[in-house]
Amino acid sequence: MTRLFNDPADFADEATDGFVAANERWVRKVHGGVARATTSPEGTVAVVIGGGSGHYPAFGGLVGHGLAAGAAMGNLFASPSAQQVAGVARAAEHGGGVLLSYGNYAGDVLNFDAAARTLEADGIPVRTVRVTDDVVSAPADRADERRGIAGDLCVFKVAGAAAERGDDLEAVTAIAERANDRTRSFGVAFSGCSLPGADEPLFEVPEGRMAIGMGIHGERGIDETDVPTAEGLAELLVGKLLDELPDGVSLGGQRVVPILNGLGSVKYEELFVVYRSVQRRLADAGVVIVEPEVGELVTSFDMAGVSLTLFWLDDELEELWSAPADTPAYRKGGAVPQERVDPSVASADEAAVAIGPASDDSRAVAGRVAAGLAAVRAVIDEHADELGRIDAVAGDGDHGIGMQRGAHAADAAASDALEHGAGTGSVLRIAADAWSDKAGGTSGAIWGAALEALGRVLGDDSRPSSAQVADAVHAATDAVLAFGAVPGDKTMVDALVPFDDTLRARVDSGAPLAEAWAAAVAAAREAADGTAELMPKKGRARTHAEQAVGTVDPGAVSFALIVEAVAE
Amino acid sequence: MTRLFNDPADFADEATDGFVAANERWVRKVHGGVARATTSPEGTVAVVIGGGSGHYPAFGGLVGHGLAAGAAMGNLFASPSAQQVAGVARAAEHGGGVLLSYGNYAGDVLNFDAAARTLEADGIPVRTVRVTDDVVSAPADRADERRGIAGDLCVFKVAGAAAERGDDLEAVTAIAERANDRTRSFGVAFSGCSLPGADEPLFEVPEGRMAIGMGIHGERGIDETDVPTAEGLAELLVGKLLDELPDGVSLGGQRVVPILNGLGSVKYEELFVVYRSVQRRLADAGVVIVEPEVGELVTSFDMAGVSLTLFWLDDELEELWSAPADTPAYRKGGAVPQERVDPSVASADEAAVAIGPASDDSRAVAGRVAAGLAAVRAVIDEHADELGRIDAVAGDGDHGIGMQRGAHAADAAASDALEHGAGTGSVLRIAADAWSDKAGGTSGAIWGAALEALGRVLGDDSRPSSAQVADAVHAATDAVLAFGAVPGDKTMVDALVPFDDTLRARVDSGAPLAEAWAAAVAAAREAADGTAELMPKKGRARTHAEQAVGTVDPGAVSFALIVEAVAE
Repeated sequence: MTRLFNDPADFADEATDGFVAANERWVRKVHGGVARATTSPEGTVAVVIGGGSGHYPAFGGLVGHGLAAGAAMGNLFASPSAQQVAGVARAAEHGGGVLLSYGNYAGDVLNFDAAARTLEADGIPVRTVRVTDDVVSAPADRADERRGIAGDLCVFKVAGAAAERGDDLEAVTAIAERANDRTRSFGVAFSGCSLPGADEPLFEVPEGRMAIGMGIHGERGIDETDVPTAEGLAELLVGKLLDELPDGVSLGGQRVVPILNGLGSVKYEELFVVYRSVQRRLADAGVVIVEPEVGELVTSFDMAGVSLTLFWLDDELEELWSAPADTPAYRKGGAVPQERVDPSVASADEAAVAIGPASDDSRAVAGRVAAGLAAVRAVIDEHADELGRIDAVAGDGDHGIGMQRGAHAADAAASDALEHGAGTGSVLRIAADAWSDKAGGTSGAIWGAALEALGRVLGDDSRPSSAQVADAVHAATDAVLAFGAVPGDKTMVDALVPFDDTLRARVDSGAPLAEAWAAAVAAAREAADGTAELMPKKGRARTHAEQAVGTVDPGAVSFALIVEAVAE
Repeated sequence: MTRLFNDPADFADEATDGFVAANERWVRKVHGGVARATTSPEGTVAVVIGGGSGHYPAFGGLVGHGLAAGAAMGNLFASPSAQQVAGVARAAEHGGGVLLSYGNYAGDVLNFDAAARTLEADGIPVRTVRVTDDVVSAPADRADERRGIAGDLCVFKVAGAAAERGDDLEAVTAIAERANDRTRSFGVAFSGCSLPGADEPLFEVPEGRMAIGMGIHGERGIDETDVPTAEGLAELLVGKLLDELPDGVSLGGQRVVPILNGLGSVKYEELFVVYRSVQRRLADAGVVIVEPEVGELVTSFDMAGVSLTLFWLDDELEELWSAPADTPAYRKGGAVPQERVDPSVASADEAAVAIGPASDDSRAVAGRVAAGLAAVRAVIDEHADELGRIDAVAGDGDHGIGMQRGAHAADAAASDALEHGAGTGSVLRIAADAWSDKAGGTSGAIWGAALEALGRVLGDDSRPSSAQVADAVHAATDAVLAFGAVPGDKTMVDALVPFDDTLRARVDSGAPLAEAWAAAVAAAREAADGTAELMPKKGRARTHAEQAVGTVDPGAVSFALIVEAVAE
């Protein structure tokens, strides 16, 4: 929703003022919108774009060298007036005529056409190219009735670059039309958006559903489904666009610019996850990807949605797409040309922890250690959501995911090391490295250090004695304590120290290892106050966890879960 | 919320893959994150940054010429492991040592410090600068305990630029420390965020409330209030930061970089509205703004929130802030240097519609016309929300706002013209121009054309006769019909044409104008099927409007409202 505004009626004007204040290196305010703050060669074409506000960086964000000469900025989701368009065009033009280019919506057509008549009456040559990239908004045989969405950028960029290199008005118009003919987009939406001061969203998509083909102002789409996976969405988007290639385009070796556009609330990381699949599917189709864009390029306020645009290049269009541009929101071509790293120089992967020579006894115990790590993985998987939930109360909620990544990596690395003949110490040290590497965060470092200490003390030479196991647990405890927590801090140390003390005492008094271990688990349970009770009673886990949150951190819960798992 | 993912456990890795695929012009994937895909001069310092994922463009988006040499990318909101940091640093370094720089969080400190020890053991010189810009996270006398948020960018940018110009490791470290000492940030949050696959948000802020000082992972802030206006938020943010100036900084003439950062779901337009006030308040405080940034620079997934950073420059810091950079998400310094437009050449404002000479009779009628436009403004103000609501059913919901902007502009322009002695025709034509200019959209163009036709026919010479009024309404009707709608299309034409026909017939049969007008209103009411019933019964407006939506568009409702208002 939209939260930050003053008088809603002033919102669009105030946004324009703030935009100009933040970007005066590129733009200046003129009647009806913005024009470049920088000079352009006399006699070149001015590409003037525009449309309603609420779509930033469209349209003001695209004004600057190599792109638009000016942008008419209407009210929220409303076309600029003819006077605004004409005002911007007069301020932006510099003797070579004006190309008006904008997304094809009735209100915009009305006002840009009226502005064109005014400008021509003033003796300024004007041409118009409307962007019509949205494939669901009309069938292919009525493509000129289609709406313009994120494909705007392709047409504007090509026209701006052509104007910058000095093409005359007819040539800029022709190349912009060709860019539009070769640009296709397809979008989906997961939520609507609310305008400043509005009590209700302007339009809505039911929770968990996806409107296929919904327009950027909530225009009706062609279908509604459940939200798919990122992979499923990529399949839908790419499939639809490959089904309608422009005339003269065939897939093998064809060069294409993909633009994966976020409409507002879909985050960059989600876009990248989807793009990963888009890119693979395009590569599988035999096309060559050129300078893609993944980000927010034509938004719809805080609407959650995504569109994919495919811009099918030819040599000239590629040259213009790749030409430099320097605007508030779109920049290409740095000041200092860069040389690429030789692709044959792959970066060295981490040196893996070496597997040392091992005795048969140690290898046998290593098998039990690996089985223990598999049990750890299983118990963490079972409780990952719960660990995250507890962590979210006091921390950042990543403990479950981190423990899961660590436990999985440790299990996989241990199995692999075991297959390669590793002994107990090597299996533990390799698992330690994998755990801390893949888990990251604080808990990853701590568990890595603990496992590393266990492995270091147990070694690869022999079947460990009870005393050696107690020594190893003590070394692991020391390694954890080295991170700074002391008993009473309400961390995993509160459970670990009694575990260590009890194990040592029982082993020293001659108890068998299994009995000493069970006593240590019981001590840890008692000390950790309800924590250890958590595991065997899964149905009650939530309630117990809620009780436990006040007294223990999720690390203590993890520890209790793990010593239980290994004890079994 | 986060909607697009595959297996949630793979989310961060898949996002990294997609990020690299989309940005291979700048970055290559290495163990633990990304390094530059471009070469760097041998012997220069490598600035290696990093942190948890979920903060894009931090951290991978900031890798490239003039900024970072590599970024360690951890799991969602979790520090990268020591192995990941070391892996990235090894791939990124090029003979001049490594500066590790990152936001000050316990997990990051742990893992970056461990990586530093590993790298130094390998003979690679390492220094560390932790960013500590968040003023609410610890008091000023314990500033080194503060968290790092959007001020990251200032420190990374300055360090990257210093490395690029060839400073050695000690010098890069010193300047990065100075940048950190002179960077302060303060943030607020309006909502939490949800991680992929999570059933619940990671943290929450109650609807309509604002958490003051909440951290980017939901860390507790210092207070909670109702969401203020944009102006109120700017006052809070600027006030807090001006209260804690770095040592040696005083306001008069001091140069400063403001960064207004959106955390995810706050939209660009909202940021610009807030920035408008931030900029004014800083100017009022006597500081000079240098190359500000307004956008999403350090995000927190889809969290709604804003932070303001002030980076207090000195000459060297300014030079480094302004130096070129070319990364996936941060680019500065275009390939082609641009010359600024001479600021003394203000862009010509629209030529206002000229006020012609007018008779006293025409001036007298002009007063009644202006009063009628004031009545129009009042009735539109009263019903603006309702018009927007009806429009949102079939269109984009902007009809109320557009009519309001148009009616206000027309009223103000008419009053002004009247004061300057305008006659009936001039008042109407000036009001027409103002209406269509400020309203924009389709309805603005239509109402502008209608008023312009009225003014053209009535002229400035005499008190209009009944026949002239009927002629004028007919000309206005023709002007509206020229936009293409015909009776039966369910547009305002359905009410306008019977109005015109009835007025003409009654005037032709000799009825007084007031009687003829009343009959025309009644005919419009009848034809528009319930539309005209809407106005006098405000309490029932919603129900009537809901009935009306099926048969009329909001333009017809506006028309009925306006003819009623003018009749009174």
